[in-house]
Amino acid sequence: MSKTTSKTNAGNFFEDFTVGQVIEHATPRTITEGDRALYQALYPTRFALPSSAEFARQVGLERHPVEDLIGFHVAFGKTVPDVSLNAVANLGYAECRFHQPVAPGDTLRTTSEVIGLKQNSNGKTGVVYVRSTAVNQRGETAIDWCRWVMVHKRDVDAPAPDTFVPDLKPVLEASDLKVPAGLDFTSYDFAAAGEPHRLGDYEVGEKIDHVDGVTLTDAEHMMATRLWQNTAKVHFNTQARADGNRLVYGGHVISMARALSFNGLANAQLVAAINAGAHTAPAYADRTVYAWSEVLEKGETEAPGVGALRLRLVATRGRDESMTLRGDDGKYADGVLLDLDYWALIPV
Amino acid sequence: MSKTTSKTNAGNFFEDFTVGQVIEHATPRTITEGDRALYQALYPTRFALPSSAEFARQVGLERHPVEDLIGFHVAFGKTVPDVSLNAVANLGYAECRFHQPVAPGDTLRTTSEVIGLKQNSNGKTGVVYVRSTAVNQRGETAIDWCRWVMVHKRDVDAPAPDTFVPDLKPVLEASDLKVPAGLDFTSYDFAAAGEPHRLGDYEVGEKIDHVDGVTLTDAEHMMATRLWQNTAKVHFNTQARADGNRLVYGGHVISMARALSFNGLANAQLVAAINAGAHTAPAYADRTVYAWSEVLEKGETEAPGVGALRLRLVATRGRDESMTLRGDDGKYADGVLLDLDYWALIPV
Amino acid sequence: MSKTTSKTNAGNFFEDFTVGQVIEHATPRTITEGDRALYQALYPTRFALPSSAEFARQVGLERHPVEDLIGFHVAFGKTVPDVSLNAVANLGYAECRFHQPVAPGDTLRTTSEVIGLKQNSNGKTGVVYVRSTAVNQRGETAIDWCRWVMVHKRDVDAPAPDTFVPDLKPVLEASDLKVPAGLDFTSYDFAAAGEPHRLGDYEVGEKIDHVDGVTLTDAEHMMATRLWQNTAKVHFNTQARADGNRLVYGGHVISMARALSFNGLANAQLVAAINAGAHTAPAYADRTVYAWSEVLEKGETEAPGVGALRLRLVATRGRDESMTLRGDDGKYADGVLLDLDYWALIPV
Repeated sequence: MSKTTSKTNAGNFFEDFTVGQVIEHATPRTITEGDRALYQALYPTRFALPSSAEFARQVGLERHPVEDLIGFHVAFGKTVPDVSLNAVANLGYAECRFHQPVAPGDTLRTTSEVIGLKQNSNGKTGVVYVRSTAVNQRGETAIDWCRWVMVHKRDVDAPAPDTFVPDLKPVLEASDLKVPAGLDFTSYDFAAAGEPHRLGDYEVGEKIDHVDGVTLTDAEHMMATRLWQNTAKVHFNTQARADGNRLVYGGHVISMARALSFNGLANAQLVAAINAGAHTAPAYADRTVYAWSEVLEKGETEAPGVGALRLRLVATRGRDESMTLRGDDGKYADGVLLDLDYWALIPV
Repeated sequence: MSKTTSKTNAGNFFEDFTVGQVIEHATPRTITEGDRALYQALYPTRFALPSSAEFARQVGLERHPVEDLIGFHVAFGKTVPDVSLNAVANLGYAECRFHQPVAPGDTLRTTSEVIGLKQNSNGKTGVVYVRSTAVNQRGETAIDWCRWVMVHKRDVDAPAPDTFVPDLKPVLEASDLKVPAGLDFTSYDFAAAGEPHRLGDYEVGEKIDHVDGVTLTDAEHMMATRLWQNTAKVHFNTQARADGNRLVYGGHVISMARALSFNGLANAQLVAAINAGAHTAPAYADRTVYAWSEVLEKGETEAPGVGALRLRLVATRGRDESMTLRGDDGKYADGVLLDLDYWALIPV
Repeated sequence: MSKTTSKTNAGNFFEDFTVGQVIEHATPRTITEGDRALYQALYPTRFALPSSAEFARQVGLERHPVEDLIGFHVAFGKTVPDVSLNAVANLGYAECRFHQPVAPGDTLRTTSEVIGLKQNSNGKTGVVYVRSTAVNQRGETAIDWCRWVMVHKRDVDAPAPDTFVPDLKPVLEASDLKVPAGLDFTSYDFAAAGEPHRLGDYEVGEKIDHVDGVTLTDAEHMMATRLWQNTAKVHFNTQARADGNRLVYGGHVISMARALSFNGLANAQLVAAINAGAHTAPAYADRTVYAWSEVLEKGETEAPGVGALRLRLVATRGRDESMTLRGDDGKYADGVLLDLDYWALIPV
């Protein structure tokens, strides 16, 4: 009498991808002032530019951008059902650039091009490389990035594709960065921003302990992850993993650490690029996240008064005042959750 | 010296209602983009139309509607202090129609007319039937619906009113549905919406397992319920029930199940009507909600390219891949939380 | 190779303050419709004026104000990193006035002037008195208030400053209140507001039990506190206190109690002033907050139909139907969390 059909999305498997394939991801999404408020509720962010429309105007931006990571998480979330629903692991990011700020009223849609494939020697999985591009309603690129994920094969007997590993920059140069049109830090208000430190006050190699910690809750990380329309089951469902824990979305840890980094990096107002990122250990509710940063590089931009600071942002479970990234064995130190290499824009 | 007075609302009891009585409910409420964002944070919704202002424009809607259930929950919440504060049970819904989409900036107020009364044979309670209407600031009906609740008598010796049971349609017909002005699905973007299935791809009797589950938290269901200004104590207060649990608002389960149904019903963009609904078991935090749907009926509308799909939406505690609604005894199967009969609009 | 520096904010200590000193606090913040929605999600507020743009218009306000306490919490949060990061205790508030409503689009920044100093006899701490002023983007005062906090000395050998204790009004008079421009309650809609009680229906000395309770969760109080960009560690971090509890921000309790007070004070639409406030006991997750009010004074304003009601708002852990503020020993009764003295605007 009744019949059961499968109209649901089972995601793509390794043999479903071909180099050059373009995937238009579902669910365009309009960014709103509600996203800004929820981001403020979920993360202890105090960067003046996304907090204050007046501050944004004073540094030359007509529209009031939301936190750059809102755009990133939304754009990234779109790719999950098609790219990583059957992923074994997220292996890496590269060449992520923020081409222009995202502001309320912008609608983002994301497409991905498959730029590389490599079947693993076990014949059961393979690595898929994609370049994803989030475009706004004016057809302009807002954000693009590469990532590579290890994906299951549906059929282990499916033939292996030709191996093609794309040539990705390990690090973008300051000259690769896109500075928002109109941005001008020459009359920057340091008192409003909260700290006096300019680009010149930071030294390569310097480490900054951001001091404060936030204890995670399940309700908060689920709300964040849903807000970005990220559908990976393990974040929402205690029945999806043997240990009964809901795994915290890696992007939640990125945003938490970036917000905590205000204390010491208050003038690193905008994220211009993400060079690389590794989620080095899982995070769960009831753990307390802290963060520290290391200055990796300093650069210039053509915008008046705007410098670029390349930072390593490290999130840890519990505070590590020694700010140790790796042990003597070269492995990430116990408690390191995130190792993110990014470029921020800061007054010179 | 000081005196204690009772200025608080004790709600209405059975003998306070008379057939024909009109109750203007308190607290008109303006819908905002904040409601949209919170809904996205609380439910895993990915329907393209409420997610994207561009998608809405492409299907002919000038303003960007919020999820239809936002309007329903807000409008419904208004009736609680007057109609169901002293309710023993919510017995049913019928004839709920969405007359036009609700968009940010709209202010809803709700009035209810008592359309039926029937004292129970025990003399202690009675059933009150109301037709409630939510009107926007332009004086236009946004949503109307009937519901009936069993309400305590204040005084068991109060005389029984004449019994009057209204004649309500068990199911609205497709021709009863209101299609939003301008809606046109003839150039519908299936890639943006996420699935290729049109009205014609669904068969009456077909069942769809929506696969994914979400584990409930107290913080989230309380936030949702407050957002709709629903004041029923049992949702917020561990001291209000003997077991110390906060009962999850039934509307939270409806929204969760509707959002989960995206996976298989991504093109069922708008809720046009609710024919009937039963909250068949209580839900609490830490339980994992899954959903399945059954196609009950297919219909046409006069709007270009717009068809109507009548669906049974079932929420369950834990996944039931057998999608069993009732046991051999005719009772709802163990784990069924919600049985909702509704009409959705979908491309033909 | 790498060096550790301290670019983070360690806050001010007692000897860092001088009478007459003006501190411009960081992070101006634009209020949005997202703040309104989150406030509705976090507190069971049903006051018609902040809920409905139409209601606000009908009482003469062109823009739709958010809850007054949103402005207060945001403005207050700005002062924490500079004034009370090293506080032992928040000792009191006085002379808090709401000069004009805050509406979405307004950007608030806060400055504080040190108006008093008094070193404690132990030589280790001192009391700092500040008058803080939140100004909007038009340069107009939105809210100002005084508070005094006990702050650690960095160096116990630092010399004591001259003692100066400012002369603060224990209670503002009705004639001190600022009524929003245009406010007119002569054609006030009591049905929409939810209760019939006017100023004249309340008697000095009258107490109102607000009946309902809400059980606190960690996710919710953290979201609220972050939304106001309040950075005090004890609210977010289970490792910051020996007992492993996250202390609920006192402002969360204020907002919860004010929202609960709707039931009996539905027409006390606007908060015009806070005369004094004491957080008399800590609050934690899983405790259930109730509220009661006492009418302290009645006054007039020059705005048409607008009266002033001075109220004591008391939050309790668990319901106290006896509404006992203090025991026979003069100390706050067990379970009292908050004792707030404020002025509300209400129809005459």
